[in-house]
Amino acid sequence: MASKEELVAAITDKGAEIRNAKTSGADKDAVKALVGELLALKSKYQEVTGEEYVAPGEQGSKDKSKAKKKDAAAGGAAAAGGGADERKAKKAERMAQKEQANQKAKASKSAGGGSERAYHAVIELGEAMGRREQRVWLRARVHTTRSVGKGAFLLLRQGLATVQAILFAGKGGAGITKDAVKYASGISRESVVDICGTVKLAPVPVESATQSLIEVHVEEIHVVSAAMARLPLLVEDASRPEGEGEEGGAGGDAAAEGEGEEGGAHVGPRVTASTALDYRWIDLRTPANQSIFRIQSGVCQLFRDYLAARGFVEIHSPKLLGGASEGGSNVFTLDYFGSPACLAQSPQLYKQMTAACGGFEKVFEVGPVFRAENSNTHRHLCEFTGLDLEMTIKEHYYEALELFGELFVHIFDRINERYAAELAAIGQQYPFEPLKYCRPTLRLSYYEGMKLLQDAGYDANPAEDLPTEQEKALGRIVREKFGTDFFIMDKYPLAARPFYTMPCPHDPNLSNSFDIFIRGEEIVSGAQRVHDVDLLIERAKWWQIPLASIGSYLDAFRHGAEPHAGGGIGLERVVMLFLGLKNIRKTSMFPRDPKRIAP
Amino acid sequence: MASKEELVAAITDKGAEIRNAKTSGADKDAVKALVGELLALKSKYQEVTGEEYVAPGEQGSKDKSKAKKKDAAAGGAAAAGGGADERKAKKAERMAQKEQANQKAKASKSAGGGSERAYHAVIELGEAMGRREQRVWLRARVHTTRSVGKGAFLLLRQGLATVQAILFAGKGGAGITKDAVKYASGISRESVVDICGTVKLAPVPVESATQSLIEVHVEEIHVVSAAMARLPLLVEDASRPEGEGEEGGAGGDAAAEGEGEEGGAHVGPRVTASTALDYRWIDLRTPANQSIFRIQSGVCQLFRDYLAARGFVEIHSPKLLGGASEGGSNVFTLDYFGSPACLAQSPQLYKQMTAACGGFEKVFEVGPVFRAENSNTHRHLCEFTGLDLEMTIKEHYYEALELFGELFVHIFDRINERYAAELAAIGQQYPFEPLKYCRPTLRLSYYEGMKLLQDAGYDANPAEDLPTEQEKALGRIVREKFGTDFFIMDKYPLAARPFYTMPCPHDPNLSNSFDIFIRGEEIVSGAQRVHDVDLLIERAKWWQIPLASIGSYLDAFRHGAEPHAGGGIGLERVVMLFLGLKNIRKTSMFPRDPKRIAP
Repeated sequence: MASKEELVAAITDKGAEIRNAKTSGADKDAVKALVGELLALKSKYQEVTGEEYVAPGEQGSKDKSKAKKKDAAAGGAAAAGGGADERKAKKAERMAQKEQANQKAKASKSAGGGSERAYHAVIELGEAMGRREQRVWLRARVHTTRSVGKGAFLLLRQGLATVQAILFAGKGGAGITKDAVKYASGISRESVVDICGTVKLAPVPVESATQSLIEVHVEEIHVVSAAMARLPLLVEDASRPEGEGEEGGAGGDAAAEGEGEEGGAHVGPRVTASTALDYRWIDLRTPANQSIFRIQSGVCQLFRDYLAARGFVEIHSPKLLGGASEGGSNVFTLDYFGSPACLAQSPQLYKQMTAACGGFEKVFEVGPVFRAENSNTHRHLCEFTGLDLEMTIKEHYYEALELFGELFVHIFDRINERYAAELAAIGQQYPFEPLKYCRPTLRLSYYEGMKLLQDAGYDANPAEDLPTEQEKALGRIVREKFGTDFFIMDKYPLAARPFYTMPCPHDPNLSNSFDIFIRGEEIVSGAQRVHDVDLLIERAKWWQIPLASIGSYLDAFRHGAEPHAGGGIGLERVVMLFLGLKNIRKTSMFPRDPKRIAP
Repeated sequence: MASKEELVAAITDKGAEIRNAKTSGADKDAVKALVGELLALKSKYQEVTGEEYVAPGEQGSKDKSKAKKKDAAAGGAAAAGGGADERKAKKAERMAQKEQANQKAKASKSAGGGSERAYHAVIELGEAMGRREQRVWLRARVHTTRSVGKGAFLLLRQGLATVQAILFAGKGGAGITKDAVKYASGISRESVVDICGTVKLAPVPVESATQSLIEVHVEEIHVVSAAMARLPLLVEDASRPEGEGEEGGAGGDAAAEGEGEEGGAHVGPRVTASTALDYRWIDLRTPANQSIFRIQSGVCQLFRDYLAARGFVEIHSPKLLGGASEGGSNVFTLDYFGSPACLAQSPQLYKQMTAACGGFEKVFEVGPVFRAENSNTHRHLCEFTGLDLEMTIKEHYYEALELFGELFVHIFDRINERYAAELAAIGQQYPFEPLKYCRPTLRLSYYEGMKLLQDAGYDANPAEDLPTEQEKALGRIVREKFGTDFFIMDKYPLAARPFYTMPCPHDPNLSNSFDIFIRGEEIVSGAQRVHDVDLLIERAKWWQIPLASIGSYLDAFRHGAEPHAGGGIGLERVVMLFLGLKNIRKTSMFPRDPKRIAP
């Protein structure tokens, strides 16, 4: 084994060799090979000495960076001493300074949108920056800290990306003191820090970081916001793949002190679903949750863009309705300035009024839907996000059905294209098979669906609505037979659908209605609606719905209504099933069920 | 009182008189007077008999048009006799035929997305089609009908566009019979019709139609949905420019008979705002409303696209909250499975939890906001659409302020570019001056704003919040001085803002907060938020907010929070003020105020 001195000499020589190679115009591959050798030497140096190699010339300036460090200590409440008042005074002063500096920067029209620091996102860092040893500012959370000898390693996290930050006392030009290293390694997990440092190529890949090829050599570190030392859950624990570790107890006391601890080796308790939801703001920081909700945001955007490009108009229908809802139970009621009111269970009437009666022809809405249903299942929420659409049809409700099929294929395609990193991150925690779907979308009649079930030995009755278990079974059968997890089933029994559903012209027991399924679970319910007021009244009577309770609804169809069809999509269900997740609470940021209404 | 027979005779005579007057070239006013007399007679007829007057000749043509009329009658419930069962059977049969034809068309892979008819939108028609005399199918509403001699003129409306359709008995190759002409001219206003005809160049411009250079020569006409003959309001009346005509009474009885009447010459009562909202599905058909809500839809889309392109994630925060809202009054309360709950007055906490604490950094939401405020003003609603955003900031809350300014300029620019026709249509009914705005957005401090008011003689106090009248005045002053209707004012008194507002580091009486104005009215309220839990507690105490009521809020900031800022935009206000409208009910499809919760 080489001594430290020998390694330093070898590294210095190799550095000179590289410079020579570059100036003499050696080809890139040759230079790359030399850099590889240099990195290997540096890595060996670190092995031998326990410290990172820092070139002698890198001894930095004292004054400025020292001042910054003081700043950081003041900012990071937890670490620094001093009474609250002193801290507050310091903070105010610091803020004032910052603001003045900023205004000055503005006044002199400095670049970068008024920021004097060139902040980078962790995800933007890359090998090229490492190669040119670029100096950057980062703002990120401390995922873990680890102190080794005179050094501190911090794993910094921002969104889906992580990077290793390194401080070593006395080495290099960073002017880092022993105290600074101690201070850094004592920063509580989940604190927000500002770091200024140099991006360098990592001597060996950093397995624990998504940015495995680089690391940041810290020159300054400031705590922007200190997290309390004992957190109710750790992101690390909440990120653990399903099945790994045991379901923890009450959850509330997972320790969160990173100090002195071997990061990554820590195996804490498994976080219960309930704890995760109680402290959702922490739980949302896991890579899987960052990904799930970015994808959910993407689904909404794709839904709207697809429709807007086809002439659909977005509406915002009222959620506060006078009296009782569209003849439904399961409705939340409230007092509206002394009158009874309730929360909309769907934008049904308003979609119809605007599209079929109001002249907009094609409308959509993305908004909350309220269901006071006292059922605690994996797929019900008392408040969820409805993606609703309604459109006039010219000759057949298949016009709407086709649009639904194409809309979903469009969404699935784009999510797979644009969210590869997010899908991978989710798969790490919740392994799933990518959704199988085909185009055009497979379409079965309800009768055909029942036939498939009967052939498979199920006691399926085509005259009745499909029980949940049979839906699931049908999903499996269809997947096996047609190779798709996504299909449409239409022509449901009339009696199984709401009163405003258009009866089937061929069979009075059926209706022009459809459901759409992903992995054997319903994500859309839709239909052609009755636009003829006489038929509507007849159907309402059949259902024993008091006509007075739907007065406006009926009126709207007395004043001329176009034939129309539409449906409602449950956003959380779509995301859950697309990702093969097992519980709808995983795709609702702040789920509401009969037992949960907080946070 | 005249007998039924007498009235029939009088009506017949009057009809002949009108026809004579028209063929002899009497002036318009004379004809109008006669039509008025005819209508009075018909109205009397209805009073006496309890039925609507139907001319004897209107007992259907024989072959095709007879079938068609029955068809129409069956569809349009109100006019035709015949038992419900018979009608239903016919309808089912018709639907079955249509569906079969459609499926056949599908099977043979016909063009046009499965439709056997090449439907065109009225807005798509053009001179080129007229020149080549293209045959088209249209589905549109009957705006007015007018019969002249052997012909009938129908003004058809679809969205913003209108076109004149013409039927002449015995003329051309269309095979139109006298009865068909009569049938067509008897179609009630606002009925939905299918028309097949040939587009031709209009011999003289059709002043009443937006498609003034062409007309459609009808070959077939079907009533798809018949509107009842007497509508609670006419689109024509509801479209009348402000100030024209008198504010009508209760509104409910504007006659809607086009038959035999001089279309366009009819001057009905002015529709009251209340009637318009009671029958909003009709009122939405006016060109101004079609335009207002298309623009509103555009504003939402532009808002989201701008933010999504900048890495913002869309969230859907819960509207059902346990306990009371963020320490506010004016909240709607409800029972949630036996526990007290309320409706969210803003997504404030959730935006902060996700952006600053949950790792998403930049979030936005478009959703309903509920305020149980008992104020009936031109700019308050109890339910409105909030366009909310929250973002982490690196060094200064001006980062958020700049984004807001650029976001709005982006929206204004695109609306002006993309919605020229809609802006013109709105201007027809509600004349307005286009919004003046500049870039970068004018920014005043609150102190500067107060100074401007004081200089203009107002008793403005920089230590207090700005009263509404002074806001208005300031808008006028700024417009005069800086030439803009759009500006930002920041550094409001701390005491005038919510407890979570970041105090100004330079002046403890001020805050890092801002409002944004259009034409002297506030459309955005925003600020940097406190991210330090100690300061947050201090501010909550100052406001005497019980800490227990904001437990989750405080917790979220104990677990590490990034500095952040954001704001909430009232969608309906933005659209109202951009368009210079006087009442927010004009930009809410189904407005909710203390006195209205229906339809």
